[in-house]
Amino acid sequence: MSLVEDFLAEPTVLSTSDRQYKTIQDLYALSLGDVFQQAFHELSQQDKVNACRPLSEHEADFTNIRMSQSPLSAESYRAFFEKEVIGHSVNLLSPKFLGHMTAPLPGFMADMTTAITRLNQNQVKVETSNVLTLIERQVIGELHHKVFGAPERFYRQSLQNPEQSLGVITSGGTMANITSLSYALNKAFGPSAGFDGITKAGLFAAMRHYGYQDVVILGSQRMHYSIDKAAKLMGLGERSVVRIPATASGHVDPVALRRKLDACRQNQTFVLAVIGIAGTTETGHVDPLAELGELAREYGVHYHIDAAWGGAYALSEKHRALVQGIELADTVAICAHKQLYAPMGISCCLFKSADFARDSENNTSYQCKKGSYDLGRYTIEGSRPASVLLLHALLNLWGEVGMAKVFDRGLVLTDYLVSRLAQSDEFYLYYQPDLNIVVYRYMPPHLRSLAEQGIPFTDLQRQQLNQMNAAIQQQQFQKGDTFVSATTLREVTGDCVVFRAVLCNPLATESDIDVMLEDQKQIAVSVARRFDHVNSFDFRVGK
Amino acid sequence: MSLVEDFLAEPTVLSTSDRQYKTIQDLYALSLGDVFQQAFHELSQQDKVNACRPLSEHEADFTNIRMSQSPLSAESYRAFFEKEVIGHSVNLLSPKFLGHMTAPLPGFMADMTTAITRLNQNQVKVETSNVLTLIERQVIGELHHKVFGAPERFYRQSLQNPEQSLGVITSGGTMANITSLSYALNKAFGPSAGFDGITKAGLFAAMRHYGYQDVVILGSQRMHYSIDKAAKLMGLGERSVVRIPATASGHVDPVALRRKLDACRQNQTFVLAVIGIAGTTETGHVDPLAELGELAREYGVHYHIDAAWGGAYALSEKHRALVQGIELADTVAICAHKQLYAPMGISCCLFKSADFARDSENNTSYQCKKGSYDLGRYTIEGSRPASVLLLHALLNLWGEVGMAKVFDRGLVLTDYLVSRLAQSDEFYLYYQPDLNIVVYRYMPPHLRSLAEQGIPFTDLQRQQLNQMNAAIQQQQFQKGDTFVSATTLREVTGDCVVFRAVLCNPLATESDIDVMLEDQKQIAVSVARRFDHVNSFDFRVGK
Repeated sequence: MSLVEDFLAEPTVLSTSDRQYKTIQDLYALSLGDVFQQAFHELSQQDKVNACRPLSEHEADFTNIRMSQSPLSAESYRAFFEKEVIGHSVNLLSPKFLGHMTAPLPGFMADMTTAITRLNQNQVKVETSNVLTLIERQVIGELHHKVFGAPERFYRQSLQNPEQSLGVITSGGTMANITSLSYALNKAFGPSAGFDGITKAGLFAAMRHYGYQDVVILGSQRMHYSIDKAAKLMGLGERSVVRIPATASGHVDPVALRRKLDACRQNQTFVLAVIGIAGTTETGHVDPLAELGELAREYGVHYHIDAAWGGAYALSEKHRALVQGIELADTVAICAHKQLYAPMGISCCLFKSADFARDSENNTSYQCKKGSYDLGRYTIEGSRPASVLLLHALLNLWGEVGMAKVFDRGLVLTDYLVSRLAQSDEFYLYYQPDLNIVVYRYMPPHLRSLAEQGIPFTDLQRQQLNQMNAAIQQQQFQKGDTFVSATTLREVTGDCVVFRAVLCNPLATESDIDVMLEDQKQIAVSVARRFDHVNSFDFRVGK
Repeated sequence: MSLVEDFLAEPTVLSTSDRQYKTIQDLYALSLGDVFQQAFHELSQQDKVNACRPLSEHEADFTNIRMSQSPLSAESYRAFFEKEVIGHSVNLLSPKFLGHMTAPLPGFMADMTTAITRLNQNQVKVETSNVLTLIERQVIGELHHKVFGAPERFYRQSLQNPEQSLGVITSGGTMANITSLSYALNKAFGPSAGFDGITKAGLFAAMRHYGYQDVVILGSQRMHYSIDKAAKLMGLGERSVVRIPATASGHVDPVALRRKLDACRQNQTFVLAVIGIAGTTETGHVDPLAELGELAREYGVHYHIDAAWGGAYALSEKHRALVQGIELADTVAICAHKQLYAPMGISCCLFKSADFARDSENNTSYQCKKGSYDLGRYTIEGSRPASVLLLHALLNLWGEVGMAKVFDRGLVLTDYLVSRLAQSDEFYLYYQPDLNIVVYRYMPPHLRSLAEQGIPFTDLQRQQLNQMNAAIQQQQFQKGDTFVSATTLREVTGDCVVFRAVLCNPLATESDIDVMLEDQKQIAVSVARRFDHVNSFDFRVGK
């Protein structure tokens, strides 16, 4: 029994005659053809966001761990795929999926991924990538130019200079953030008199040599958890990530940051980086990037901007003001699989200085030799696909005009949702959005009435409100007609569960937003009823 | 001027009427269609391995960093892509490309990547991956079962248990090795009385708490450079990677390894891992995996097997003996984009113990919560594509029978090349291969004659031999008719440049190997002539 045979109810589908692939040529010729196209077309017509049972009910179907002996026929596999995979995935094509940083992709993206697979170049070295090495450097240069706007002579000198690097393509934003922080540490604790540098001698020796008791990373309380991952991976530990509280507006407080920088100076604590966020994951806030940049410069600290979400706006002159100050960063992380409409698996980390990665270079005797064009000299990852072509296609096929159109649409939809929330009796807006991420809450009438009278909630009321909001979002996902996500904001007044809408699907309409809110409202009524019914505040929200 | 416009010689191609995409719907509908298919078909018929000039001559074409204002037409982009990208990539479809760990992919892989892009699931959390969460766990379980062969009850307990993990899918082998080493360190230096654990407190505090002066990683001199990358990233520094010399046969010396383990015990040095290699990158050697496993167990050290190349053989009962002892590992890295014939960008790290990742879990308030099915709890990477489907398709569509056929073919081709080298007057085999990687050298008559008389080479002769072999391989790549790679083996007798053939293309024939050797021979003659001509040993090989 193979992984898939379980699912094939019709025994005829599995006729053994299909299962004979006599030669290696047969194995290679095996194709699934364009038959998925129909299934995907149906998916795109389908309104349902989620047609999957909770995984706890579904998991028993995926417990076979015995590998198939004979090959399965292409027809059988296709039947499995269309029924089980397409049928039970999340329908990210739906305009009513408004909850995560994922939107439908332009048609050419699927064509480009096919082309990338067909070429199957490996960007780690020239012998398996050739011209794609130059194209990757060029695309990075184009992003670099949009973000940092260095003079032409800088690019003439550095763009295709194999001894320099303007940035790297990574598999995701986490790797981009890790790259920035790791390379910044390698640079700060580089070789000096009597010391080989941290990349040779390690963190322990580096801290002793440079006379530091501690290393910290400073940024907003809203920093993405990949910063904690970086700190853990780099041996700094989560304790080294110091989260500065946000002001009432949700942005990092520069005054508190300066106090912290002063304290570090006095305590032999090395500040590895100040991190600015251009679009926090939870709320879409853009930190005061210029102000942070001035602080970082004043204290001589590496300035990294996590622009995984918002960095894309820098590519459109019209929208650039949304991420004003981004040019002050030393390094910038941008996810192409977010607002550059590429499929999952491509981000980048841009280096303002073409020499930033110098202390982090990797060399071996079989590739990435000194002097070679091999891009692997500057990446943490090794073998990598030429996914840079996804970005190349977007930059050319949408151009700045096309991208601006798409960004505009997301902001229009954001304004619409905000205005609908303002008119609503059930929901209220939690933050005025900086970008196209909107957080809001459901509030039942009795609490709203307290709030309107200025009577503060008790802890139990607060907890109940959180439980209701969480329950509404979970039921909404399982019901599967519309979707927004939820998060728990850690506020000084306590945890606060909010809905989170991400308006990045430019094909969504105002009516989709109306339908989504109406869906939530109906669920809210039934959830509120259950809360009244149990008449207790220890109601447990299921997983 | 856009990135691409430079290349479009025919101004008609760029007719401005093509360049108007009025609506967002137009931008989304933009497709490049199946038109690449013809270009790829031509590529597959083409014998040339490389039709690209040296990048230093080509780089001037890729210096424009100004982003396109208006969108380019699909036709223009296609014209660019077919001419500049397909035409100047490395032709990995050629059966005469025998030099890297890359082979043509079965037809269904392109179909599957298209499907993955169309679904665009994000494996980090259930809300964007649904059933693909279960499928990823199932595929990892299937690999785990083949590698470790745990009893059925283990999989019943752990396979779909969200509190446990049998392994992770990564973007590549480097990330798989990093995951293993980082998580092993987190486990070893976990929380204990009076200590929060390394993930919170950092390496510095952990070493102090556990009373170690140093941390090392032990393995063969042939360890992949990703182990050094891991050590650098983790704050251990390259010095912590201790390379044990290989024996004359090219395998790590277990006696030397035991001595080192003893020394570490005496020096308060923590041994983070013993690393066994199942198929070294340079030579394809398989370390004595069982013996290393016994040593690791005796000393209580984490045992990681870097089976990026050779791990695939564990999936075929017929070939399993090639990587005998792999089941003794605590963690195993396998690259699906190597001998599991998936496109670039998918590897995995398998965890023998379902609790291995416990001390490395990541949680946030917006995803990867405790108790959730979110796979992001156990990965270093964050947002990730559902590339596990590539593996799922292969396991089902090739099955064990199909994979065994493909493995057989590579080994037959290996034997053929070895026999041809034995008959040759120009080349000699450097190592008897363990798997399907063959290293060999060219040797001119006068040196061969010395060797046959048992007269050792002078340093200058050795150097000349290295230069000639390097020059032959570089000319072969630029000539572009056939290809093998080269590496510099660091031997006790000094550096040694060798050719490196990787016989993983099952569609290659014996005749392709003959043609390749003949090509090298002809180049060798001309290179040898140049060496005679300059009549000096300081001849410089160009980059």
